Order: sequence, then structure tokens, then C-alpha cells
Amino acid sequence: MKGNVIVGQSGGPTAVINSSLAGVIKAAQNNGIEKIYGMHHGIEGFLKEDIIDIADYIQSPSDLSLLKRTPSAFLGSCRYKLPKIEGNEDVYDKMFEIMDKYNIEYFLYIGGNDSMDTIKMLSDYAAKKGKSQKFMGVPKTIDNDLPLTDHTPGYGSAAKYIATSMKEIIRDNESFGASKPTVCIVEIMGRHAGWLTAAAALSKSSDCEGPDLIYLPEVPFDVNDFMKRVKELAATKSSVVIAVSEGVKLADGRFVCELSASSSDYVDAFGHKQLSGTAAYLTNLVTQETGLKSRAIEFSTLQRCATHLASRADVDEAYDVGYVACQSAINGDTGMMVIIQVTSREPYLVNYNKYDIHEIANVEWKIPHDWIINDGTYVSNKYLEYARPLIIGTILPYYASGLPKHLTLKNKKR
Amino acid sequence: MKGNVIVGQSGGPTAVINSSLAGVIKAAQNNGIEKIYGMHHGIEGFLKEDIIDIADYIQSPSDLSLLKRTPSAFLGSCRYKLPKIEGNEDVYDKMFEIMDKYNIEYFLYIGGNDSMDTIKMLSDYAAKKGKSQKFMGVPKTIDNDLPLTDHTPGYGSAAKYIATSMKEIIRDNESFGASKPTVCIVEIMGRHAGWLTAAAALSKSSDCEGPDLIYLPEVPFDVNDFMKRVKELAATKSSVVIAVSEGVKLADGRFVCELSASSSDYVDAFGHKQLSGTAAYLTNLVTQETGLKSRAIEFSTLQRCATHLASRADVDEAYDVGYVACQSAINGDTGMMVIIQVTSREPYLVNYNKYDIHEIANVEWKIPHDWIINDGTYVSNKYLEYARPLIIGTILPYYASGLPKHLTLKNKKR
Repeated sequence: MKGNVIVGQSGGPTAVINSSLAGVIKAAQNNGIEKIYGMHHGIEGFLKEDIIDIADYIQSPSDLSLLKRTPSAFLGSCRYKLPKIEGNEDVYDKMFEIMDKYNIEYFLYIGGNDSMDTIKMLSDYAAKKGKSQKFMGVPKTIDNDLPLTDHTPGYGSAAKYIATSMKEIIRDNESFGASKPTVCIVEIMGRHAGWLTAAAALSKSSDCEGPDLIYLPEVPFDVNDFMKRVKELAATKSSVVIAVSEGVKLADGRFVCELSASSSDYVDAFGHKQLSGTAAYLTNLVTQETGLKSRAIEFSTLQRCATHLASRADVDEAYDVGYVACQSAINGDTGMMVIIQVTSREPYLVNYNKYDIHEIANVEWKIPHDWIINDGTYVSNKYLEYARPLIIGTILPYYASGLPKHLTLKNKKR
Repeated sequence: MKGNVIVGQSGGPTAVINSSLAGVIKAAQNNGIEKIYGMHHGIEGFLKEDIIDIADYIQSPSDLSLLKRTPSAFLGSCRYKLPKIEGNEDVYDKMFEIMDKYNIEYFLYIGGNDSMDTIKMLSDYAAKKGKSQKFMGVPKTIDNDLPLTDHTPGYGSAAKYIATSMKEIIRDNESFGASKPTVCIVEIMGRHAGWLTAAAALSKSSDCEGPDLIYLPEVPFDVNDFMKRVKELAATKSSVVIAVSEGVKLADGRFVCELSASSSDYVDAFGHKQLSGTAAYLTNLVTQETGLKSRAIEFSTLQRCATHLASRADVDEAYDVGYVACQSAINGDTGMMVIIQVTSREPYLVNYNKYDIHEIANVEWKIPHDWIINDGTYVSNKYLEYARPLIIGTILPYYASGLPKHLTLKNKKR
């Protein structure tokens, strides 16, 4: 008897995090694993032995297909950082006791860099104590800031959502401005890395001029230079559209959104401050200084949960990295994360590989500086060539009464 | 010789306003009209003789199909109120001179209640002066606040966008909250009528519990009662999601968003104050008073331009009202707006009719009071039965490089 599989989801959800879950489940099924368990709310739930039996919810291939079309973390997510091993061995011992109790041999965790830390700690502890369990990381983050993998599942769909919505917003903004320009500032997620904001550039095509300016967190933000550029644009164009990362910072290190009166003080369990209000602050500034109509748009969580607009390539890759991670664990790998290697961008061809989790956990990958052009206000063709294949293809939702159907934990099957 | 057709688009764009344009064009073509003109930026452009020849941009049936899949006003829109006839006869005389110059006999205007005023004024002036031109209104508004028509083209697609996005947001919000509830407040357009905000209720289904509370502008907003309800919900649920109209007002008549420090003072040409920040204000209040994580989401212009998620029924009806309006003008009707009559909701069957524009212009239709339940915090099944057929069906975009293709004025064909 091989032992059972447990899988958890962690951090901010994506449009395709459940596709990775579907891949893990399929690999476990194909290997004849007896029990496939899910952590309810990730490692936080696991510590409370809040564990579900996947077979209670997912029985047929059509359940798996619907799971792939369901946004957000089907199992529930968490933002929970394990304590360091030294001085907290009781926490780790308890986790291995729970694994023994459920005969869990393969531990899969779907998450971003904070979450990969969990795989690192658990595999380190297992090595130290001579435990047999295997721990594999499944990459997931809309932020695309994991190192070593060409890109991360979740990014392609978020980029497709951002580029599609930018195109629609630009068309909307262009429709006015007969007598007076309208300035629209779109705030996009990405605390330290500008990958998501850069995706706004993908909207540029023969039928869309794309945003006029793109501000990334990789470049210090200069409010005066920003206002100068907005005024110049408004003098020649009836529609000005600007993409700005929620994470843009002044040269002195303060977030631009902290300048706003309505800035939030909320800090999450990973110690991250909640960022919001950058676009609202800048649009108020534009209207005050120019009298022009301006509008702030925040994509907010929509950019990470709009599975109705998921990228086919992304859904497939998310599924594959889940499958490969589970298969690798069963084959004996541990302490690694699956990575995507792109062997050709056109035609688009990928391979999957595995990499030591110690090189990945807590490391952030940002946009290369030579991909950022126009004094830090746009991205180059190198970025476009990199990102274009990631948004190709569409996976249609299953519709009921005009709305996409989802699979949820509220519909237990047995 | 019959004379030519001119068509304009006015007010806030919708996902299907171009489908109405396609219907007008098709009817004109089918009647052998020689020239089909477009007003560039509506009546505001027309007054400056900024007129385009539709044939320069739209030549084949596939152009019309792409036009139906293009968001926002293809011809450009405006917010421009004609002056009253008395004392401004020169303005009206000039407009009829332009019509004579282009041999325009049929004048179609696609818009909402403010825009229907234009049709009323022009048809009144024509009657007074014995002019032969015919003026017909084509209904359009995401707000669904036009009277006499069962509903207005543009509403169904906005409702589908809102319900789909609400479902995705609710799933996203549910994924957290293992240890502490998360409160998400979604701000939805609708200055005086709650039709759009009510559409959040459509997300409620076997796989989604829907929003917990829905606040409409038809009901005075009580901040204390709101906080009491949020605290009660947060005591029993890990995810609280609330839909709130941008137009909710306190009992004293102030907009809730005016309580926010970042409230905008911008006022548009129709005298409407720009509303924004209601959700941001309320989430800050929730976090201050409860310490809970809260998140504000504004659908902003996305709800009126997300053609990638348009409702099939809405696209078809928008096309039909455009077609019927143009055909009616050619048949000799004037001073009327086309209306949709629903003869059966299940199966869903519609008729088109025409109605005197004087009964429509500047009148706002709101949600009936007996459709609002739970002390003004939800909508009843009567609303759901009314709205469900309007979001049925999907019309797929034409994709290029992973993004929906659009038809634009920047791609002149000859």
C-alpha cells in the first residue's frame, strides 16, 4: 500500500488554482491512490485536522472538468506562515502525527512564494527526522513573481483578464472626449513585481492603441513627472488611459496609495499591508490640477477570479503542474517545486521540470530592467513576446441560467 | 429618392449599443437607403457637422458582425443637452440646414432618458415648422430606468456581467476566512434606480449563496443599521459580501459617497455629480469598527463595456430595436421610441412596439417598492423572475491573439 495523498491551496486564489487541484487529483487516481485528502483552508486547516475526503465532492470526470472551470480555491485558502523549526518542533511533530493518522505519504501544496516556504520547512523537517513523506510544491500566483519557472500558472489568465478589460476600458474612454479629454487610471495588482501591470500593454494591437503610460513597482514613482506627462497627453489626445501598479512607491519608499486620505491600515498574516487607492489618489490629483474629468478603476480581486475569461494555455499548464507534482511525489521526489520551461515561444512549446524548493521559497522575480522603457513608463517588445503566448486560447465556462457554473464544497455528494 | 439616414449614439456606452447601430444600418441597407451617415460624438458632433459616412468603415456582413461584438459607442458618444427651443431657434435651424445639406430624412438616436430629450425636441421643432424629417429614438441604457419598455437594451449584458462577477467575487471571498471573516463590499452603478445593483441577486443559485445584503438607491441608507447587520453576519459567517449602489443616499439626501474624504466634485454636462467611493467609505468604516479585513470593489465602467460577457438576448434585442426604429422612420413614424414588450417570460418571448417620446424623455423608472424586501436590504423573487431571461445566452467575441477583436473608427476602409 502506497499511502495517501493530501493537497492544499494557499495564498491569493487564481482563476486556475483549481485546475492544478484537478491535475493533482487525476495523477493520484491514475496511480491507484486509495484516499485523496484536501486541506480545508490550507496548512491552517491542516493544523486543526480540518481535512476533507475529495471523493465526497468529486466523483466523475465531469466533476473534474467543472472543477477546472471554478474560480478561487475550491478547498479554501489561507495566509499562514509556519513557525521556524527551532523551538517549534511540537508544531511539526503534530503535523507528522496527523499525516501518520491518515496514512498520508504525499503532501502537495499549491501556492506562491510565501506558500513554498511551507514545503521547504516540512521537507527539511522530514529530512532531519528521517520521515518518509514526500513534499512537492505546485506553483500558483497571478503575480508571476516565482523564480526559475518561465512563468507561473494563474498569470496567463490574470493577464488575459487585464488585457481584455483594458481594451474594453480604452474603447469606453475613447467614446467621450469630443470637447474635453477624459483621463482614466487603472490600478492593477502586484505589490513588488510589475508583471500584472505590464499585461496592460498586451491590449495594444491594430484595433487598440493600448494604455498611454504603464507604471510598474520596479521603478520609483515621481508624482511631478506623472502630472507633466498627463498634461502633455491631454493636450493632444481626447482619451488618456494609464495603467498603474497598486505597489508603486515614491523614491522615499512610501507607497503612493499611502498618500491617500482613505488609505487602509490593514496588514495580513504575512505582514503585507493592504494596498488600495493608488488610482483614486492619482485621479483626484489630475482633476484638481487640470479640471479634467478623470476616473479611477481598480481591477481588484476580479483579476484573480475571472475564470469566465481564463486562458486555455494557463488552464492546461496549471493542470499539468499539478499532475507532474503529484506524480513526482509518488515517484519519490521531495522538497521541490514543479517549474515550466518554454522551449519555443512560437510555436509555443513547454516542458515541465522540478527544482529545489530552497532556491524558490521567499525569492521574488521581477521584470528585467531592460524590458522597461520610456523612462520607466512602458514595457518593451521583449515583454510582449514573452507574454503573448500565455493568453492564447479560451476555455468556455459551463453555463446554467446564463451564468457560469461552479463546483463548491457546499454540494457534498455522499 | 427617399433621402438618407443619420444615426448617433449618446450617453454612457453599453456592451450592446453597437448592436443597435448594426440594426439601424441593416434596416437602412435593406430599404435601399443611399447614404447612411453617423454622427461623430452624437448631437455634439452633429452640431459641428462632424459627420462620417458609415460605408467608409462598414462594408461587409462580417463588419456588421464584428460591430455587434464591439463595446462602447463605435461612433463616439457625448453628454450634450439641446437648449430649449424658445430663444434658441438658430440652433435648431442650423441642425435642419445640416440635414438638408446631406439630404437626411431619417434621424435615429440611440440613448437613454437624457438622450431621448433630443428626439423630443427635434421632432417637436419639425412638427412646429412643418419639416419632413422623421426622428426615432432607440433605447439604450445599462441603468434600465426608461419607462414603458419592459427593459432597456444594455441592461441584460450589464446584469450578466454583474451577476457573473459577483459569483466569482463571492467564491474568491469564501476562500479565506478560516479564522476571521472577510467583508467585501461591491459598488455598482445606478444613480437613482437600483436595477443594476439588484442584478447582484441573480448570482444566487444552487452553487452560490449570493450577496448577503443588497442596498438600492430607492431606499434611504442608514449607516448604523448597516453596521449592525454587518456585525451580525460576521458573527455567524466567514464570508460576508454586500452589494451597494453608488447612488445610495442618507435620509437627509446626501449621497453616502459624499461622506468620503476622497469624494469627487466633478459634475457632468447633464449636471450629474460623479459618484464613486461608496464602497471604499463603507469598508473603511467596517474595518475601523470591527477590525475585520474588508475589501471594496467597484465594477466601474467595466459593467457597461464588458462585451466579452454580453447576453445573447440583449445583443439580439439591441439589434432589433435599432432595426425597428430605422424601419419605422422610413415607414413614416416620428417622435417615438421603440419599446420592448415581453409577452411571456418562460418561454421568453418579446414583441417590439413604439411609444410617444413625450411619455419617455426625462422620466425615470425605478424598482417597484414591493420588489424590495428584508427592510430594504434585498430584492424579491419578482425581480429574479423579471431579470433572469435577460441574461440568458452568450455571444462569443471574435478572438485575435487571445483577445476580443473590435471594430474601430481608426480603421478606415476606403
